[in-house]
Amino acid sequence: MQIDIITLFPAMLTGFLSESMMGRAQEKDLVKIETHDLRKWGEGKWQITDDRPFGGGAGMLLKPEPLCEAIDSVRKKESLTIYLTPDGEPFNHEMAVALSKESHLVLVSGHYEGIDQRVRESRIDREVSIGDYVLTNGTLPAAVLVDAVVRQIPGVLGAEKSLTQDSFQRNVLGFPQYTRPVEFDGMRVPEVLLSGNHKEIERWREERALEKTRERRPDLFSTKDT
Amino acid sequence: MQIDIITLFPAMLTGFLSESMMGRAQEKDLVKIETHDLRKWGEGKWQITDDRPFGGGAGMLLKPEPLCEAIDSVRKKESLTIYLTPDGEPFNHEMAVALSKESHLVLVSGHYEGIDQRVRESRIDREVSIGDYVLTNGTLPAAVLVDAVVRQIPGVLGAEKSLTQDSFQRNVLGFPQYTRPVEFDGMRVPEVLLSGNHKEIERWREERALEKTRERRPDLFSTKDT
Repeated sequence: MQIDIITLFPAMLTGFLSESMMGRAQEKDLVKIETHDLRKWGEGKWQITDDRPFGGGAGMLLKPEPLCEAIDSVRKKESLTIYLTPDGEPFNHEMAVALSKESHLVLVSGHYEGIDQRVRESRIDREVSIGDYVLTNGTLPAAVLVDAVVRQIPGVLGAEKSLTQDSFQRNVLGFPQYTRPVEFDGMRVPEVLLSGNHKEIERWREERALEKTRERRPDLFSTKDT
Repeated sequence: MQIDIITLFPAMLTGFLSESMMGRAQEKDLVKIETHDLRKWGEGKWQITDDRPFGGGAGMLLKPEPLCEAIDSVRKKESLTIYLTPDGEPFNHEMAVALSKESHLVLVSGHYEGIDQRVRESRIDREVSIGDYVLTNGTLPAAVLVDAVVRQIPGVLGAEKSLTQDSFQRNVLGFPQYTRPVEFDGMRVPEVLLSGNHKEIERWREERALEKTRERRPDLFSTKDT
């Protein structure tokens, strides 16, 4: 898989792209990630990329020309071009799995008040939001999407971690987990987990997971029905 | 405000913390952010921070001792300690505004299968999820939370951008925005935005915003009622 990220702040991503799983996935050639500084396509001596919105209002918008040139220079026929924006479709586990099967993602990070609507209409295949909050720009959201997608690519996680117990595999939150020591700070690991009775352990975990989901996220239970 | 982030991957944050708004907010002394490498509190020669879960299962958990020592070494009486986890309370704009009024946040990034439950029960004040997807670790979520919170601190955004038009200020998505040129790639800016009639412009924007919200996120309309 190839991922191209277009942003005014490529340096925000340097640490993220080289650390931990992301670094290994690239070393293993399972994914190739390139960041592109939008300023390269900026206009004139000052490499301008933004302008004021028509109709007034606070803030600046990314201009259509530099952004479209940037997108056109990296996208191919098979690419899926995604704009990260708080008014996009909510990103979730299911979408991460689906996107991990694409061959080429182009991720567009907005800044300021966003991007010209005509870019959205002519160049963007999908608009995605990582959550109901506002961030400085779309670069962190692009990193979040990349992390969630890349770990779904077969071979990336290796032996370090299985995916099977992850939250959202089946719309239920995770169960409580304990490791050594058996007693810590006056708190003991629940006896059932020390029992060696795998059937009991599984039942206990299932009950705790359902209990937590009911308490914290009852909306997850209804997601599949609507 | 002070923010301390405890993570096994502090290098993931270096780019993020020095760029754009985050860099300026720290230069202006509006926020002080420190990252702490959990490995510093690791055990023995190999600075071990993880162990296998009781009761079996794939993956590793963060051990209670190093993590609690790390938390105890940075938190103060007035601190709010937050664990980033996909089974936490969903992060949103409202929470970002509330957290921006705290004096000290301690953010705990999990890794692998998560952290020992006893750390959650004894040290964590609030468990927060940035969205319904699974990431390699909690470091990116910590960055997302920091970005959303810091931009709510008075003085951080300055003249660059007003907050008033942001999505989620009032549970309505943003309206379409356009900038120069009036015609781009055969697409024209809607006439009303060029009319200079502010009342008409405002009405057009309001209608588009409501239309988009109805189409994409009807759930936002009902949020306030439930």
